[in-house]
Amino acid sequence: MPYRAPVRDYSFLFDHVVGLEQVTATDRFAEATPDMVEAILTEAGRMCEEVLAPLQRNGDTHPARLENGVVRTSPGFDEGYKAIAEGGWVGISADPEFGGMGLPMTVTTAVNEMMASACLALQLNPLMTQGQIEALEHHASDELKALYLPKLISGEWCGTMNLTEPQAGSDVGALKAKAEPQDDGTYAITGQKIYISWGDNDFSENVCHLVLARLPGAVEGTKGISLFMVPKFIPDADGKPGERNDLRVVSLEHKMGLHGSPTAVMEYSGAKGWMVGPENGGMAAMFTMMNNARLGVGGQGIGVAEGAYQHALAYALDRKQGRAGGSGSIVEHADVRRMLTEMKAETWAARAIALSCAVAIDMTTATGDAGWKARAAFLTPIAKAFGTDVGMAVSQTGVQVHGGMGFVEETGAAQYSRDVRVTAIYEGTNGIQAMDLVARKMMDGGEAAGALLDEIVADAKSAQDDLPDMAQAVFDAAETLRETTDWLVAQELQDRFAVAVPYLRAFARVLGAGFHLRAAMKGDDPRRALARFYIERMLPEHAGLLAQVRQGADGLYDLSLDDLAAA
Amino acid sequence: MPYRAPVRDYSFLFDHVVGLEQVTATDRFAEATPDMVEAILTEAGRMCEEVLAPLQRNGDTHPARLENGVVRTSPGFDEGYKAIAEGGWVGISADPEFGGMGLPMTVTTAVNEMMASACLALQLNPLMTQGQIEALEHHASDELKALYLPKLISGEWCGTMNLTEPQAGSDVGALKAKAEPQDDGTYAITGQKIYISWGDNDFSENVCHLVLARLPGAVEGTKGISLFMVPKFIPDADGKPGERNDLRVVSLEHKMGLHGSPTAVMEYSGAKGWMVGPENGGMAAMFTMMNNARLGVGGQGIGVAEGAYQHALAYALDRKQGRAGGSGSIVEHADVRRMLTEMKAETWAARAIALSCAVAIDMTTATGDAGWKARAAFLTPIAKAFGTDVGMAVSQTGVQVHGGMGFVEETGAAQYSRDVRVTAIYEGTNGIQAMDLVARKMMDGGEAAGALLDEIVADAKSAQDDLPDMAQAVFDAAETLRETTDWLVAQELQDRFAVAVPYLRAFARVLGAGFHLRAAMKGDDPRRALARFYIERMLPEHAGLLAQVRQGADGLYDLSLDDLAAA
Repeated sequence: MPYRAPVRDYSFLFDHVVGLEQVTATDRFAEATPDMVEAILTEAGRMCEEVLAPLQRNGDTHPARLENGVVRTSPGFDEGYKAIAEGGWVGISADPEFGGMGLPMTVTTAVNEMMASACLALQLNPLMTQGQIEALEHHASDELKALYLPKLISGEWCGTMNLTEPQAGSDVGALKAKAEPQDDGTYAITGQKIYISWGDNDFSENVCHLVLARLPGAVEGTKGISLFMVPKFIPDADGKPGERNDLRVVSLEHKMGLHGSPTAVMEYSGAKGWMVGPENGGMAAMFTMMNNARLGVGGQGIGVAEGAYQHALAYALDRKQGRAGGSGSIVEHADVRRMLTEMKAETWAARAIALSCAVAIDMTTATGDAGWKARAAFLTPIAKAFGTDVGMAVSQTGVQVHGGMGFVEETGAAQYSRDVRVTAIYEGTNGIQAMDLVARKMMDGGEAAGALLDEIVADAKSAQDDLPDMAQAVFDAAETLRETTDWLVAQELQDRFAVAVPYLRAFARVLGAGFHLRAAMKGDDPRRALARFYIERMLPEHAGLLAQVRQGADGLYDLSLDDLAAA
Repeated sequence: MPYRAPVRDYSFLFDHVVGLEQVTATDRFAEATPDMVEAILTEAGRMCEEVLAPLQRNGDTHPARLENGVVRTSPGFDEGYKAIAEGGWVGISADPEFGGMGLPMTVTTAVNEMMASACLALQLNPLMTQGQIEALEHHASDELKALYLPKLISGEWCGTMNLTEPQAGSDVGALKAKAEPQDDGTYAITGQKIYISWGDNDFSENVCHLVLARLPGAVEGTKGISLFMVPKFIPDADGKPGERNDLRVVSLEHKMGLHGSPTAVMEYSGAKGWMVGPENGGMAAMFTMMNNARLGVGGQGIGVAEGAYQHALAYALDRKQGRAGGSGSIVEHADVRRMLTEMKAETWAARAIALSCAVAIDMTTATGDAGWKARAAFLTPIAKAFGTDVGMAVSQTGVQVHGGMGFVEETGAAQYSRDVRVTAIYEGTNGIQAMDLVARKMMDGGEAAGALLDEIVADAKSAQDDLPDMAQAVFDAAETLRETTDWLVAQELQDRFAVAVPYLRAFARVLGAGFHLRAAMKGDDPRRALARFYIERMLPEHAGLLAQVRQGADGLYDLSLDDLAAA
């Protein structure tokens, strides 16, 4: 699978679109000079091209499997993981005190995206560990930090997150796993967890599970949940993994895709655990981990989109068919050209949104500023849902570009579309992301939304001399979105929920147009052509979406359950 | 897999939306009384529910396989096929002279859709045979008809179509298979064909291949192609299969879905064949077969959409999660309700379009009227592309409704989305359907399009007192589409090709709205609620699509191939 890391594109985005210079101007991230960032991207990119991309098909054709209670990973994944760990790519943004590079999340986001393009199934492993590192940095005791962080950051140990139980999916508060205090200050963890990504592996020295469970007598719902570190092997004081803990992989799921990533049902049978954060305060720590992971999952979608695009383009450039002009390959056909350009424009828009979200996170970390914090919070669900929707759509188009070959597994086109499918579901379904956007993220009366729209409008105004048509289209779209946003924040929650998904998508469409316009102002002719394609052909979608938003929940329940079921 | 045949819905569509009474008022189809049609639907529906639906998962989990040159089909498929053949469901529309029922294609379309909902992989088998029957009825000699039609119509023998070669996919004219005349009036067929759906099976007495090949000295391109009947076993004069012909299955494809349907690479090594139609006139006969099959493939998409919808609804009704009101299941959540209602409204729109197309085909058959013929020709690519796009979108939404369970294969939700994926590719990719629409189907200067829009406008006018808001929305959409259509027919072919896909989709959107409005005028409150959902929330998509159409090929090639490949 040939993959070329889009390092030049990240650099352009950093320098001209998402404003990484604001991040590197802070004390906190002063070390991330442009030269260093480019060196990091280049080195990570090379590893993705040379080490990870060749593993992509292995993960699909030789799935992870459970043998006598032991997870056996796909051929070559051990070497791939070693390259990730030794390159330091797990801990790019982690605390230097414990061995991390301390670089901005913006850089991590780009590197994670490249790893996702190259081999999504394996990339999910360090993504989980990164989330765990951040949760521990914020919530764990100094003792736990000292013991676990160096090992996780170096990649010697891996981390997982254990939320879901069969009866408690999106409704985390319904979980039942128990944690009973022991005399030695630890807890005995008992319960079954499902959908545990990379619940085990055969290449890391230890696997560290962060598990949500209830203390005896805890209240029902999310307020009675605590978080525990439950390692596969219990480390001694020097951090040497010792005794086997009382937990095991019961089974692995048989999934539509992402076969290289073992998705485990985990059984905890009085396993020894250490509390992370305060009693009954587990959800706060888990949210730290999930927030990080949401941006990361959005990046997975974008990474797959990039991989699927490159894969489809290579096929189209190579495939001769019909009376195509120019190169004689199908890439000259107008409809194939339209598909490919759409894939590229869409991937770029989603990437700009994710990196802009990452910049806001970094600025929040560096400055604590409430405006940046609100911006990061608003952009996170958009980055997750839109990035993964783009991953699905672009990879489906990639299959279509391949024609009949797209449906045949050997080409690898279908794998992108199967692998990426879960990203719209895990870390909170895209529907839940959209509900988060219109509810929690609009408790400010639409202020964060308005600030983003102000920025787009300012860009449009500054582009009106150079690129009048594009500027006008973006300006109009932003103002239509503003009006609809003002209307939406005045509605009941039920009305907002009913149209949360089209609203999120419309917002992403307009944001994408704003970033494309900015890139057109700063970039060369090809970049302008790409922006023009997006703004003229893809931005208009927002109008239909916003018309839908204006319906709220009106009439939504007029069809009874019997009506829905009538055949 | 519980499946309930939507017989009531077909009856409503026949009686109140697509005007089957026009068909049954003709001499040709006078026997298809309402009672008979309902009895047919009920009986076929029962077979789909009881016999075929239980086979759906088998096809996926126990794929067809090649053993020592023999295709072994999935468990139970032999019994399922027997039920289809014995029910007479292969030859519903076939000539009664040879054992067919002689019923309208409209009825066949409904029955095929039900079979596709129940078990797509198996349904593809009789769909191929139906196409072959029609091709033989129109183009074969009386001798061939007498020999083959009774066996194909009874289902004792199956039919396939052999177009594609490795170097000749969508560009059929590039094919190289050879046909050499023999002294006995037959031809020796030599060449390799790929993507042969149901290229072989272990449950029919014979497999009859219609093969495109070139006579010695034939001109290049599509004008030098002839069509041949090449049976697996050569029948004697009484139609008894005898000597094994010199053809074989080389391999089966490893596909993303539709595992129960063996997709073969076929090798013909001087196999004995009989010419169908005139020398070098093979494409005309093949187009008969493909035209039939295009509507049939559209119906496959709709059938899968219906199956996926019912499957997702059943899950949503059963799954308790969160603080849902009413039934306490997730179907009460606004976003889940939105997804399910969208699935239902979308499936219904696609079904109305396909059945309306079938009525136009039947009217053409019965009357030879040029207006009906043009309407059928215009609606066929829309029915194919939109029906299969709906199949993909609805089945993807079905996965989403399932949350994490959707990504796990055991639930069956993922299978719908994998199986249906090929329908957007085979029988001419959806891009090719769209190009057919804006090129060949607009050589009339937009007359057929205009006639359809006139009808929608007339419906909107007659609804303006009862349902003023819906009527206005449909009227406005139809007029916007008319303006864009007038603009499009005046453009160069390249401009039309560049926006063929969004144009087809916009046309389908507006057509769907027209049918929903008509249903709302004739139907009860739930039907009005469904129409309202579609018209208020889904119809608005047309505006963005038509804005895209107006761009033509403008700027599409501004990004060079190097620009597209820049990483």
